[in-house]
Amino acid sequence: MEGIIGIIGGVGPYAGLDFLRNICNNTRAVKDQDHINSLLVSCPSLIPDRTAFLLGDEKDNPAYGMVTCAKMLYDAGARYVSVACNTAHAGRIFTPFRTMVEQFEGLTIVNMLETCAVYVKTRLQVHRIGLLASKGTYTSGVYHEYFRKEEGFTLMEPTAAGQEAIHAAIYNETFGIKAHSAPVRVQAKTILQEAITALAGRGAEALILGCTELPLAVTPSKGGLPLLDPGLLTARRLIELTAPEKLTPYGVLGCAAE
Amino acid sequence: MEGIIGIIGGVGPYAGLDFLRNICNNTRAVKDQDHINSLLVSCPSLIPDRTAFLLGDEKDNPAYGMVTCAKMLYDAGARYVSVACNTAHAGRIFTPFRTMVEQFEGLTIVNMLETCAVYVKTRLQVHRIGLLASKGTYTSGVYHEYFRKEEGFTLMEPTAAGQEAIHAAIYNETFGIKAHSAPVRVQAKTILQEAITALAGRGAEALILGCTELPLAVTPSKGGLPLLDPGLLTARRLIELTAPEKLTPYGVLGCAAE
Repeated sequence: MEGIIGIIGGVGPYAGLDFLRNICNNTRAVKDQDHINSLLVSCPSLIPDRTAFLLGDEKDNPAYGMVTCAKMLYDAGARYVSVACNTAHAGRIFTPFRTMVEQFEGLTIVNMLETCAVYVKTRLQVHRIGLLASKGTYTSGVYHEYFRKEEGFTLMEPTAAGQEAIHAAIYNETFGIKAHSAPVRVQAKTILQEAITALAGRGAEALILGCTELPLAVTPSKGGLPLLDPGLLTARRLIELTAPEKLTPYGVLGCAAE
Repeated sequence: MEGIIGIIGGVGPYAGLDFLRNICNNTRAVKDQDHINSLLVSCPSLIPDRTAFLLGDEKDNPAYGMVTCAKMLYDAGARYVSVACNTAHAGRIFTPFRTMVEQFEGLTIVNMLETCAVYVKTRLQVHRIGLLASKGTYTSGVYHEYFRKEEGFTLMEPTAAGQEAIHAAIYNETFGIKAHSAPVRVQAKTILQEAITALAGRGAEALILGCTELPLAVTPSKGGLPLLDPGLLTARRLIELTAPEKLTPYGVLGCAAE
């Protein structure tokens, strides 16, 4: 019972499911028992909206709920834990979270954005990176902490209007992905495709799907820009940490990067 | 933090994911926080193959691993727990499991097969039920315990050759659903479609997808026989027990029964 993977999901719930599915899809397995022991906590009522907190519309720091979830996972045996939400990685949330979970001995937190940045630096070697994300992620500037100018990166964001449109594609109660993910509405898909075209036109060499809902709505096209899914990259990193011999080759299933 | 749903998954892993997805899909929610707090334990290495045990090819009773998973869920706060595997509901596995978890005070085990039988009796009111399942489920006769002749049911099973074919559609390492679920192979789909046609021809009025992998490969057709997914029905039952006001109407998303 060593090396169990833990996922703090529920932020949102489908993103957590997608994260665990990525772990299964990227594991070499021909029978149930080959799969890696994993736990998913999907307790959305414990974790206030991350974007609302970063924009000042929500007082409670989501970090506290995330710590409660981490404790549930830790008590149940998880030792490698990731949070299936981009916006939660903003310093104002992730730093206190990380400090508070230091009390759990032997727990390794695998940071999704750091994992994505390491991948771009070591494997993809491109510099002009377009970012699709929720307003909270743009406002917090969280991706700028990981893709720094000093390291030669240009992080490209959509125009203000483009950012509003993407936020609606995620959050709108009538057509947004959080409310309607099975299937994703055409309006949400169209907004995202337009944002991708605009960023490509401005010279982006790769695109980050910087919100865990986006991979549900955007699929890579042959010859199109590489689409980086930080959740997928982190799922693969968790496999590498717990059972490296079981990691499938890149590109076999669902990996948009290569 | 009351009424948390717990899922013993990993048997197999995709079936556990499908179970939690059914909970999300059948919950009235327009934002993350509306979703029901849920935990998924996917620890396949703890639970030997259920069919192999029932056929005598595996000595260890999967019940013990299931109890370990139930304890992980219980310790983390889950109080309504289901096992996302049909074969695990055979008396030789489920009865000792149920006895052992009685030590967990306040824990309610929601039996997937019982839930399915109650649904057929109270809502569907048909009597000739076709069963698609793995060999272990047929051999154990587990569905006969719930759909009894004495209550007017005729439980219809495929021929021996048909049962072998369905088992291969689930387990075969080259084309079976357990090894290849994204996407499911055409060969597996064809086998299942032929089995459905044969049971319909013999007069089945409804079909049970009696293995948690099958809903990944079979979709209801308009005017075709009702396809009962015990996992879906149980997901809805868990919502009804924990947050009845959040249960969507039948047939809105993914429900094949009506």
